[in-house]
Amino acid sequence: MSEQHPVLKYISAGAWSLVEPLISPRASDLLTALTSFMENDVLPAEKLFHAQIPSYPPEARWASIPPVLENLKIKAKKLGLWNLWLSGGDFQGMAGGEGGGLSNLEYALMAEIMGHSAILAPQATNCSAPDTGNMEVLARYGTPEQKQKYLVPLLKGEIRSSFSMTEYGVASSDATNLRNTTALPDSSNKALRVNGHKWWITGAGDPRNIIHIVLAVTDPNNPSPHKRHSLVLVDPRAKGVKIVRPLTVFGYDDAPEGHCEVVYDNVEIDVDSGVVGGRQGLGRGFEIIQARLGPGRIHHCMRTIGIASRALDILLQRVSDPNRRTFGKHLREHGTVLADIAHSRAEIDQARLLVLAAARRIDIAGAKGAMQDIGIAKFTVPSMALKVIDRAMQVHGAEGVSEDTPLAYYYASLRTLRYADGPDEVHIRQIGKNELKGVDKLRERTNKIKKESDRLMKENGKSKAKL
Amino acid sequence: MSEQHPVLKYISAGAWSLVEPLISPRASDLLTALTSFMENDVLPAEKLFHAQIPSYPPEARWASIPPVLENLKIKAKKLGLWNLWLSGGDFQGMAGGEGGGLSNLEYALMAEIMGHSAILAPQATNCSAPDTGNMEVLARYGTPEQKQKYLVPLLKGEIRSSFSMTEYGVASSDATNLRNTTALPDSSNKALRVNGHKWWITGAGDPRNIIHIVLAVTDPNNPSPHKRHSLVLVDPRAKGVKIVRPLTVFGYDDAPEGHCEVVYDNVEIDVDSGVVGGRQGLGRGFEIIQARLGPGRIHHCMRTIGIASRALDILLQRVSDPNRRTFGKHLREHGTVLADIAHSRAEIDQARLLVLAAARRIDIAGAKGAMQDIGIAKFTVPSMALKVIDRAMQVHGAEGVSEDTPLAYYYASLRTLRYADGPDEVHIRQIGKNELKGVDKLRERTNKIKKESDRLMKENGKSKAKL
Amino acid sequence: MSEQHPVLKYISAGAWSLVEPLISPRASDLLTALTSFMENDVLPAEKLFHAQIPSYPPEARWASIPPVLENLKIKAKKLGLWNLWLSGGDFQGMAGGEGGGLSNLEYALMAEIMGHSAILAPQATNCSAPDTGNMEVLARYGTPEQKQKYLVPLLKGEIRSSFSMTEYGVASSDATNLRNTTALPDSSNKALRVNGHKWWITGAGDPRNIIHIVLAVTDPNNPSPHKRHSLVLVDPRAKGVKIVRPLTVFGYDDAPEGHCEVVYDNVEIDVDSGVVGGRQGLGRGFEIIQARLGPGRIHHCMRTIGIASRALDILLQRVSDPNRRTFGKHLREHGTVLADIAHSRAEIDQARLLVLAAARRIDIAGAKGAMQDIGIAKFTVPSMALKVIDRAMQVHGAEGVSEDTPLAYYYASLRTLRYADGPDEVHIRQIGKNELKGVDKLRERTNKIKKESDRLMKENGKSKAKL
Amino acid sequence: MSEQHPVLKYISAGAWSLVEPLISPRASDLLTALTSFMENDVLPAEKLFHAQIPSYPPEARWASIPPVLENLKIKAKKLGLWNLWLSGGDFQGMAGGEGGGLSNLEYALMAEIMGHSAILAPQATNCSAPDTGNMEVLARYGTPEQKQKYLVPLLKGEIRSSFSMTEYGVASSDATNLRNTTALPDSSNKALRVNGHKWWITGAGDPRNIIHIVLAVTDPNNPSPHKRHSLVLVDPRAKGVKIVRPLTVFGYDDAPEGHCEVVYDNVEIDVDSGVVGGRQGLGRGFEIIQARLGPGRIHHCMRTIGIASRALDILLQRVSDPNRRTFGKHLREHGTVLADIAHSRAEIDQARLLVLAAARRIDIAGAKGAMQDIGIAKFTVPSMALKVIDRAMQVHGAEGVSEDTPLAYYYASLRTLRYADGPDEVHIRQIGKNELKGVDKLRERTNKIKKESDRLMKENGKSKAKL
Repeated sequence: MSEQHPVLKYISAGAWSLVEPLISPRASDLLTALTSFMENDVLPAEKLFHAQIPSYPPEARWASIPPVLENLKIKAKKLGLWNLWLSGGDFQGMAGGEGGGLSNLEYALMAEIMGHSAILAPQATNCSAPDTGNMEVLARYGTPEQKQKYLVPLLKGEIRSSFSMTEYGVASSDATNLRNTTALPDSSNKALRVNGHKWWITGAGDPRNIIHIVLAVTDPNNPSPHKRHSLVLVDPRAKGVKIVRPLTVFGYDDAPEGHCEVVYDNVEIDVDSGVVGGRQGLGRGFEIIQARLGPGRIHHCMRTIGIASRALDILLQRVSDPNRRTFGKHLREHGTVLADIAHSRAEIDQARLLVLAAARRIDIAGAKGAMQDIGIAKFTVPSMALKVIDRAMQVHGAEGVSEDTPLAYYYASLRTLRYADGPDEVHIRQIGKNELKGVDKLRERTNKIKKESDRLMKENGKSKAKL
Repeated sequence: MSEQHPVLKYISAGAWSLVEPLISPRASDLLTALTSFMENDVLPAEKLFHAQIPSYPPEARWASIPPVLENLKIKAKKLGLWNLWLSGGDFQGMAGGEGGGLSNLEYALMAEIMGHSAILAPQATNCSAPDTGNMEVLARYGTPEQKQKYLVPLLKGEIRSSFSMTEYGVASSDATNLRNTTALPDSSNKALRVNGHKWWITGAGDPRNIIHIVLAVTDPNNPSPHKRHSLVLVDPRAKGVKIVRPLTVFGYDDAPEGHCEVVYDNVEIDVDSGVVGGRQGLGRGFEIIQARLGPGRIHHCMRTIGIASRALDILLQRVSDPNRRTFGKHLREHGTVLADIAHSRAEIDQARLLVLAAARRIDIAGAKGAMQDIGIAKFTVPSMALKVIDRAMQVHGAEGVSEDTPLAYYYASLRTLRYADGPDEVHIRQIGKNELKGVDKLRERTNKIKKESDRLMKENGKSKAKL
Repeated sequence: MSEQHPVLKYISAGAWSLVEPLISPRASDLLTALTSFMENDVLPAEKLFHAQIPSYPPEARWASIPPVLENLKIKAKKLGLWNLWLSGGDFQGMAGGEGGGLSNLEYALMAEIMGHSAILAPQATNCSAPDTGNMEVLARYGTPEQKQKYLVPLLKGEIRSSFSMTEYGVASSDATNLRNTTALPDSSNKALRVNGHKWWITGAGDPRNIIHIVLAVTDPNNPSPHKRHSLVLVDPRAKGVKIVRPLTVFGYDDAPEGHCEVVYDNVEIDVDSGVVGGRQGLGRGFEIIQARLGPGRIHHCMRTIGIASRALDILLQRVSDPNRRTFGKHLREHGTVLADIAHSRAEIDQARLLVLAAARRIDIAGAKGAMQDIGIAKFTVPSMALKVIDRAMQVHGAEGVSEDTPLAYYYASLRTLRYADGPDEVHIRQIGKNELKGVDKLRERTNKIKKESDRLMKENGKSKAKL
Repeated sequence: MSEQHPVLKYISAGAWSLVEPLISPRASDLLTALTSFMENDVLPAEKLFHAQIPSYPPEARWASIPPVLENLKIKAKKLGLWNLWLSGGDFQGMAGGEGGGLSNLEYALMAEIMGHSAILAPQATNCSAPDTGNMEVLARYGTPEQKQKYLVPLLKGEIRSSFSMTEYGVASSDATNLRNTTALPDSSNKALRVNGHKWWITGAGDPRNIIHIVLAVTDPNNPSPHKRHSLVLVDPRAKGVKIVRPLTVFGYDDAPEGHCEVVYDNVEIDVDSGVVGGRQGLGRGFEIIQARLGPGRIHHCMRTIGIASRALDILLQRVSDPNRRTFGKHLREHGTVLADIAHSRAEIDQARLLVLAAARRIDIAGAKGAMQDIGIAKFTVPSMALKVIDRAMQVHGAEGVSEDTPLAYYYASLRTLRYADGPDEVHIRQIGKNELKGVDKLRERTNKIKKESDRLMKENGKSKAKL
């Protein structure tokens, strides 16, 4: 193992020792390039990025993209740090599809590193949600025309997109509840009319956004509740689309991307061009969102570990700041601070390994075969990161909740991950149920062991044992 | 990846997918053999093992070894499942030293599987503490005579041994406090006289035990507190050795091995034969125990994960027992039970990966290079396992704390691991301090980033940013 | 407030300041007497009590009662510290019924103090479970003959009793599952025959025990599942009663009282004398156990706080032991130790107040009116105490799990309280449901507020607000 | 006990049963009036209050006070719900000082109820921080002129004030670190010049604010570090005062009050009028802030319990919303939701009792005598409330972090309480140390018990006991 690989600035030696044999030379080079890009370009650009977003009036916050971001994108492309998330084969032939081809395990390491600048790095490298998931949907299920119109510019980082699923006023964690947005034929029967009230539509505030992928009921009377929906494509500039407001997360609006409340009021779309997959895509909404969510969940987890890592870096620097002594000691000398550090490191290390194992499992068995590993990561990682960030806030005193550190913003952002793509509780319940699926085999084995145990006892003339 | 490898009955698919490429064909075969041995031989023998230990009188509990254990040892040797822990090269030439040669990573998987029968399996395969650590000490530091006399029969599983370190009435977690046991020259100056009062000497109750490796002060005036001690070899049958009592852990005495209070009252030993390493070993006590503890700590962790896994297996079977319904539901249908299962699985999976990474790190960088990973595992794994076991106890109602499940015994045994080889607090503090060692480099990187950030801000005419 | 009241050695000043105005002069004097009795008599007798229980043979452990206990009982009676739990009026006229008459709040303080010697003090003062609950049952529901035969000697502390409810192999936390023990007419129709297999029958090992109160089905076909059971009185010396074994709790057998597995094999009882309440008591089993459980639960909680307090006292003394320094500091100087102390005190203080409030609530509204408060205490207090004890164990190193401190035994005993009288989960679920009962009123209030809020907004020409 | 008292809508029956005997008829009437005022006036005004604060431009947010607040103040005065926190005697003779005279225990109940509308209710009743603490300072230590100028209008609710303590860039949790703000004689020696850089100055954005009480070094060479400081009075409109910016807390700016960064640049003050207490007040800064902090801490805790209670009310209504079903169940039917509810209620109930006991203790023994109780509440209550609010957020899905519920704002506000007036860690350490102060007495008692125990053992011919 190379003890000098720059990745070791971000990843623990234990984890690296385990995965290094599985990392290709190209990925290893990209990792090296990425660490340089982060330190030389992305992290130094963070402050300017925020400075280039106007404070007010409100309209201005959503009207433009900080120029520094475009500079980063140009540089990233040049370095080959583009579309790194693209592991599959469907895209490779397409214009803009270069850059991918990494294994999920390889990408996991990169995503964690990008998480150290979680707002900027994913956008700079065209690896940010919800675009990545939307590209997957279009690549796998889109018609050739849809690919040309939306996938190509997305791959090139020229436009942005939204995934429009959560319905206003509906318990959306159970997707079968999503019944109020429809895309039904109008009287002419030539077009579909999209009607619905959605919210938490990430990226809908972005001026570059030209496409919402909307989950809508197209076949309300289908006996199977899982075959009633389709994904339809709505241009947010079309007549009938109303961006009601950007929602805030804690007090942050995440401009210029935003998480918006959106009303679709009788928006006209064409079946062939406006349903993902065209006519063949009708009724396949649930199938497609299932496929979309798996890897997306793990991408979030990967980045989240990077965010937690950065929070711990910030904590470490604060508690060892020579100018900060309390009660005659440096902060770092207080026993509880050392315990906070040790627990944070232990939790980060464990979570990273969990995510790496899940990524590797996707590489081997596909997202479906990795469901258990993905699900465990999904409910474990955000809570872990919140704990680490909270400790980092606490050692900063009031500064920790202010805009003078990124910690409170991190906290707010990650708090949403405990709901996004399904709340923790749903994943926890599902994992619990999955574990129980193997119980019959387990009981069979136990019974066989018990039978042999009883035989041995009898053979040796014993009837009872006491521990 | 072979989705059918029997190891998958014990290890999660995620972890296996990550480590499989690092497992040799021989280790893979041994893993297969071990899973069969566990299910066909070890697990069915557990009850008989306990039945073959007399309940009383007290003397009888310590007078003999259950015959079923000797049967298992014979079978294990035949299957090549012997001395699996032996990763180093020192032993291989020795009689009895066959069997080893596995990497720490490979052994970690085996140790976890053995943890499913944590009392029997390690003994059956000659992989049990404290013998393994003692063999390492003798192999690395013993004289040829000492190796012949003690190491060879230990490797063959013919005798047992103790490691005698903790002093009665002394805060032993700080090893420099261990000052009250001495091995000093007698008046004749020909022999040393060992005097001391130790306790928690594991295995000292075992009738097969013929050697205590005792940490004793031999050079009380050495200016370095780390060079005052030696390891001396005391035969428990010698004059002056008094086994005061077996201590209990909760209400368990762990007969016939036991954890004993022992007085060494003027026990005579010879320097050449009685000091580990002979005269050259004088003053090297601390050096040797440091070397001894590293891998030993991780062996405990590996087995502990197996114990936690078994507890979860027991929980799963209980909550899906069709005969147990409460309030109209099977136990498994209660939401909190599913959450208990999911959290337990998540915690086990994470802890396993932590231990595997630490083992792999030892393979690459040695125990010293893996200190951080080992330390994190040391304070993380036992607490994790206690939580899992506690949940398993809880779903059993009162049965869970009784002798009708192994759970309470597991709990008691693992609770001691939060002290053994150093209490959690010591490791936590040490890990915290280690993390802070890299902070200067971190600050340097941060400062460089800040400088570039300031330059960018200035270049773009900005003075402040708001998140 | 008297800042000097001896109760302040046991109870925090905050709690005392709140309850003192509610304590009668007689109770205040009894509290003073109790603190002296604890320190001069009970606590010094603990070691001798254990020494007077033979280690083996097993039979001997259950054959006699340590004489020191009888001495304590004589002294307690003389001091008026007898039957303190007896708050009700039913008993007062009876021989042996003197001593009671305290409010539940007053008794709560005493029970906590007694918890500092949780094995000895309750027995010494005739305040120990399960006798107290059984006396309540007999006093409230027994026939005059039953009272004379069993209640009087129980009040005098001459005999002991068991409450036989939990069934072997049955999920007993849902009491409607208890269907396998029956007391049905024999062929002659003159007597009932009790058949059943119970376990965890506390006190069934005690040589003084002459009465089991057994929950048994007497009317299996009653349409209401809550009217099928009766409580029947079985003399453990009768033909057909078999004490199968004492069960262990973490390896402890709790001799000479024990928690036993018991088989009732066709034991003959007479309806009039053998059913609690005679013929009128038939079918009232569930009604009576409900009434029995309420105050009993809170008595356990009260004592538990005393146990936790003693564990903290032991911790405090250990960490300030001048002979114990590690890494150059006294244990007490380590930051995490101070945090352990502070959290333990905070948790004990809160739990005590919870129990005192519940006790006061019983005084005002009866056990039924205090259900919510009792239930919250029931699932809160044992877990709290386990945490405190665990911290106390941890600062002791291995000694903390051994017989050289009472901590491991405390842990084991209190761990069972998380199942006894219903597992935590049942109480938690019930409290959750109770809270939801008031939600309609809450919604009504909220709607009223909303309506007025909307009116105000409109009146002021506003349509939306942003936090 | 009156089971119908309206306070029972806010306070648990258990707590009320304990404190009711200590509540005066006047306080009972005020409690009744307060509950009506909350439901009829304060809670309905919340939305309008926020609507009356302009969104932008930034200046406008700090330029005016929502008129609805002034309406509430008028009504509160009329109802006698004014200056309720005023427990002491110093104020009563003063204009505006009517309204007080309640015990701390009585006020604690009111403060909790006010916490249900934590932004509005305290201001509406002139009970809000930092004014209350500042009024205490002025009343106890101010000169007659200072009282007339500042205390009277504060008591009348006509002006607002700030307490200016935390220094920019300084580890202020150790107050002896506050060395960089000075109020030293200018060359003329007639006036003092205040220089310093403070931040987190709550209320400094408020247009009504006309007085900052600033902790500043006036005697830098005093040998005692606790006698170097004074409190000086600075008018924020004076020359040299610069409000640099309002800081954000998780993105919220808390306009129009704000938490501001403030620079005092050579601000001139007169010793007699500008030092709290005039010349006699020089050097007494630390003494005064100590006195100020005690009751203030507990006021925060009281309100915090109200906030947690409201969060639970919101949770209860959400999970029982008939329109929200997931996976075929109402949210409330999920086991983990019931557990969340039960734990939240248990934690709130315990925290309330802790605060009530501390308040009662202040009534009896003064703030100094109640230090232990106050300190425990200080580090316990905010963490508790954060847990409850977090659970409430979680059941809301994404809505829970948005502006459509007050939950995220509550979370952000209370998160700061874990630093304000000293971070948790400082209080935890102090409580730990205090507990250890009594350990010598404890050891003495234990030794006495041990001696008697040894005597008993010897008398009975026993030498050892085994648990």
